[in-house]
Amino acid sequence: MQYPNGRRSSAKFNHSTNKQTVYSNRGMTLEDDINETNQHYLANNTAIIHKKPTPVQIVHVDYPKRSAAVIKEAYFKQASTTDYNGVYKGRHIDFEAKETKNKHSFPLNNIHQHQIDHMKQVVAHQGICFVIIRFHATQETFLFPAESLFIYWENQFSGGRKSIRYETLKKEGHIIPVRYQAKVDYLSVIDSHYMKNGGKAYGGTRPE
Amino acid sequence: MQYPNGRRSSAKFNHSTNKQTVYSNRGMTLEDDINETNQHYLANNTAIIHKKPTPVQIVHVDYPKRSAAVIKEAYFKQASTTDYNGVYKGRHIDFEAKETKNKHSFPLNNIHQHQIDHMKQVVAHQGICFVIIRFHATQETFLFPAESLFIYWENQFSGGRKSIRYETLKKEGHIIPVRYQAKVDYLSVIDSHYMKNGGKAYGGTRPE
Repeated sequence: MQYPNGRRSSAKFNHSTNKQTVYSNRGMTLEDDINETNQHYLANNTAIIHKKPTPVQIVHVDYPKRSAAVIKEAYFKQASTTDYNGVYKGRHIDFEAKETKNKHSFPLNNIHQHQIDHMKQVVAHQGICFVIIRFHATQETFLFPAESLFIYWENQFSGGRKSIRYETLKKEGHIIPVRYQAKVDYLSVIDSHYMKNGGKAYGGTRPE
Repeated sequence: MQYPNGRRSSAKFNHSTNKQTVYSNRGMTLEDDINETNQHYLANNTAIIHKKPTPVQIVHVDYPKRSAAVIKEAYFKQASTTDYNGVYKGRHIDFEAKETKNKHSFPLNNIHQHQIDHMKQVVAHQGICFVIIRFHATQETFLFPAESLFIYWENQFSGGRKSIRYETLKKEGHIIPVRYQAKVDYLSVIDSHYMKNGGKAYGGTRPE
């Protein structure tokens, strides 16, 4: 598909009306796996995390009598935030998910400056913020903390690499375990690396 | 406008392409005021709170050569969550905003069961959750905590009122001050009623 600004995105949107067929041909996308994981978390009352709707600029709507309003002209807008957010053990969770077909590194042009700006704001306000990165070839999925991402992001503007090496992701990130119902069980990584004392240090008490 | 399910909503969406003209004729909506307030909070690094995009089911997209993708057929979907969320002083913030033309009460049919379900989940996970209610006639705007809303919501199914009286909102809710740049300064209410000790009791420390 094509954005208003002319950039192409391969896997981000899924506009097919016949999802079953598509999925059986090509396997689940990272987005599908995360949505399923979030549904599982929700059903088990583990966390309340949702994907934000795709932002659309609506230009023209028809209101036929006795049937649903039809949007007849609209355009994709660039999101001003990350795609996923919610709450877990009293903490605000905020992340972006990206899949790459590269085998040895994650190209930083998968991320946009305005997303980095948003992530910095979230971190400054004590949210838990990260990127989920999947290597398509191996199906390995990493949680890479926003705080680490910022360093590689800034480095590229002072002569540094335009991508993050696989080895770096493995060393500074955390591999996300694949579980039967939580296909991308990122909360287990949050538990180990952000929630010492079972989250009690951060969760606080209930508002009165 | 009309939803796919046939219900009508008067003020929720604004599809006009000529907003300036519309606004000058009828004044700012509650949504406009909240968006402006959130922009002000963001610009001052007070809080990171955004409105979620309107959820749309996309059916058909055209990809003309050398220009932006055009959505040619799409439908409004019902949101599965509240409209606004984000992070403030380490706490997850989640709310819905509703304007009523009633003068003496807020009709509960402005809220949907699935929104109540979502709000209960957020509260259970220690998010700060509430409804912002504006009386169109007086332009008074209240913050009504989700915990109080749940009581009136449940009561209606056992013979209770189908609305919340203005006096109840005034007594159990909190009037939101109008400020020059923060037209709906709901964070001042959060500070007074949810953030004793300046939020330190709840904010916690930074993740490592």
